[in-house]
Amino acid sequence: METWIKSLKTNTPQEGFELAILLARKGVAYTQPSADVRKKLRPKYAKNADSLTFASQVIASHFQTVAAANNYWK
Amino acid sequence: METWIKSLKTNTPQEGFELAILLARKGVAYTQPSADVRKKLRPKYAKNADSLTFASQVIASHFQTVAAANNYWK
Amino acid sequence: METWIKSLKTNTPQEGFELAILLARKGVAYTQPSADVRKKLRPKYAKNADSLTFASQVIASHFQTVAAANNYWK
Amino acid sequence: METWIKSLKTNTPQEGFELAILLARKGVAYTQPSADVRKKLRPKYAKNADSLTFASQVIASHFQTVAAANNYWK
Amino acid sequence: METWIKSLKTNTPQEGFELAILLARKGVAYTQPSADVRKKLRPKYAKNADSLTFASQVIASHFQTVAAANNYWK
Amino acid sequence: METWIKSLKTNTPQEGFELAILLARKGVAYTQPSADVRKKLRPKYAKNADSLTFASQVIASHFQTVAAANNYWK
Repeated sequence: METWIKSLKTNTPQEGFELAILLARKGVAYTQPSADVRKKLRPKYAKNADSLTFASQVIASHFQTVAAANNYWK
Repeated sequence: METWIKSLKTNTPQEGFELAILLARKGVAYTQPSADVRKKLRPKYAKNADSLTFASQVIASHFQTVAAANNYWK
Repeated sequence: METWIKSLKTNTPQEGFELAILLARKGVAYTQPSADVRKKLRPKYAKNADSLTFASQVIASHFQTVAAANNYWK
Repeated sequence: METWIKSLKTNTPQEGFELAILLARKGVAYTQPSADVRKKLRPKYAKNADSLTFASQVIASHFQTVAAANNYWK
Repeated sequence: METWIKSLKTNTPQEGFELAILLARKGVAYTQPSADVRKKLRPKYAKNADSLTFASQVIASHFQTVAAANNYWK
Repeated sequence: METWIKSLKTNTPQEGFELAILLARKGVAYTQPSADVRKKLRPKYAKNADSLTFASQVIASHFQTVAAANNYWK
């Protein structure tokens, strides 16, 4: 696989949050490598409140890691 | 996307908790960018106990991050 | 919103646990602000084992935060 | 409520694990204070694999806290 | 209950991972003490992808604890 | 079981992420040792959005551990 992440360092908390989203999506992409299948799953998933909350939970877990890696952008 | 967060620092634990809520919602909003769709999901979701507990879980995860970033407001 | 938390400091682990419960409930209350609706959800929810376990999970997550904030009451 | 916990300190990892179980159960008990109702829920719950895994998850979260409080019994 | 754990220290990350599995199983065993019942639940559970992922999640939570206890085997 | 992990150290965040995936899969494999059964579960599982999110959550938990073990590749 090509390089998709080089560092957990980001300039701002917002960039860190967006990195957390990337990490959450990569977790899905490694498990289901077909972009086609993932795309087909999206419409239903994105209209289910619990599915969205679940996605938000994974982002929260990665954001803990990214924030720690950046010493909370202090 | 415009800037919606500049720092994890807050003056009080309560502001920190409210920042955690914002982070939880942003996790949803990045996944489902349509405010319209999110609004439609709300009535059902907000009347389901487990959905509310789940939302509370995501807030708890982000509150861990925000609290650590503020050295627990010691 | 009025002030409902001023500090994560508590005198004892038990008070810390009870603060964790408050935080878990506030996470729900911010998401569903109607006390009326929350009250209606309660009977069914409080008789479902998995719902109770889930509530316990959110408390556990907040207790991690509160315990760390109190240096584990060492 | 009477005092049910005085310290997160335990002599051994096993006692710490058992304290984590107590914390998980207390999270349920604060949410559903009726011992009667909790007892009725038990038979079904204790025969459901996912419910048991979920209970184990809550214990794991509390064990993280208790283990940290005891400096991992090093 | 007899002693089933004396220390969180392990010689290698792999032994630490296997200790995390033991902790996850003990969380189930304390909740459902009957080995018989647990055995009956196994066939169905072990053929359900989400149940397996859930088991893996509990192991991950305990592995965080065990890894920290061993200073990540650095 | 043969040795499948010797260290939590990786050269890059991406290798750390891939190690987190390995740990998540090993959690499943220890619980369901039959590669055959796991393979049969895959098609359905890999087409279910929530199952994929769940897998991503387990990876996120392990990535927290691996990132900490590598001092966040600072």
